[in-house]
Amino acid sequence: MNLASYIHDIPDFPKPGIIFKDISPLLMDAAATAEAVNQLALSINELKPTKIVGIESRGFLLGILLAQKLGIGFIPIRKPGKLPGSILSQKYALEYGEDAIEIQQGALSPNEKVIIHDDVLATGGTASAACKLVEKCGAEVLQCNFLIELDFLKGREKLEQYEIASLLNMKLI
Amino acid sequence: MNLASYIHDIPDFPKPGIIFKDISPLLMDAAATAEAVNQLALSINELKPTKIVGIESRGFLLGILLAQKLGIGFIPIRKPGKLPGSILSQKYALEYGEDAIEIQQGALSPNEKVIIHDDVLATGGTASAACKLVEKCGAEVLQCNFLIELDFLKGREKLEQYEIASLLNMKLI
Repeated sequence: MNLASYIHDIPDFPKPGIIFKDISPLLMDAAATAEAVNQLALSINELKPTKIVGIESRGFLLGILLAQKLGIGFIPIRKPGKLPGSILSQKYALEYGEDAIEIQQGALSPNEKVIIHDDVLATGGTASAACKLVEKCGAEVLQCNFLIELDFLKGREKLEQYEIASLLNMKLI
Repeated sequence: MNLASYIHDIPDFPKPGIIFKDISPLLMDAAATAEAVNQLALSINELKPTKIVGIESRGFLLGILLAQKLGIGFIPIRKPGKLPGSILSQKYALEYGEDAIEIQQGALSPNEKVIIHDDVLATGGTASAACKLVEKCGAEVLQCNFLIELDFLKGREKLEQYEIASLLNMKLI
């Protein structure tokens, strides 16, 4: 099964000059989704994580499937103001300005070993902030896990101290 | 397994006077998550849907697990500006003002039979808009499916022409 054929390029979204990687065709196909989750689970292999942390919103999708596949719990990282209770927050830089992501305090115990999942590794800003959040909880990041890596955006450089797994390495077209 | 014990009440979130139903403790527990998905799948039983439509963001979580459990595709309904390509949009009223949700045009074929999933049925505004979006695609809504129903908010009345399934019926406390 050629998983890359289930990812469609949408030019000029969300802004002119950007080619958006649309994962909807993959999600629409149950067998392709299952195959992607199987392959992502293989990349985790012998790491023996205790939790999958998924980044809102698209990281929730394969993230929770991966957690169920591995028989472990799922923890959401969300945009500011979405998670209830005591939260930990981490800012990160955008092209212009900054944004933040949050995790619930106490979601992770200090001895936990975590896989962070998102659909796309672009510049690595969000994933890097997610790693910091997990570490603020005292937990360990075993791997940053992505369906798609846009290698021309060099997100790997921002995550150089972490193991990275990506299923589909997509070039600039 | 008492699934209700995995849903925590968070008072005064997102605003004073509101008791937020936090599903994080359920997601954090792989067995409880699997049991919730099993029970939701049982409620769908013989309806034979062709797609699960999940509402951003929390409806993505059990929505995609349900789709995989049933061996069918998943389609996201998202907040405005998030979905690429040609989209269909549906406004709905909020307590003050209005909001909208979107689906990709062509995501559903006219002959499709759909289960709409979200984590919580509150006033029914979002779910009702989701039904309208599915019908704009020419597809049929077989059931509106929720993990939690807050019956004191009377969401059922707004969805009276649809079959509704909810796993946990929660009272005002």
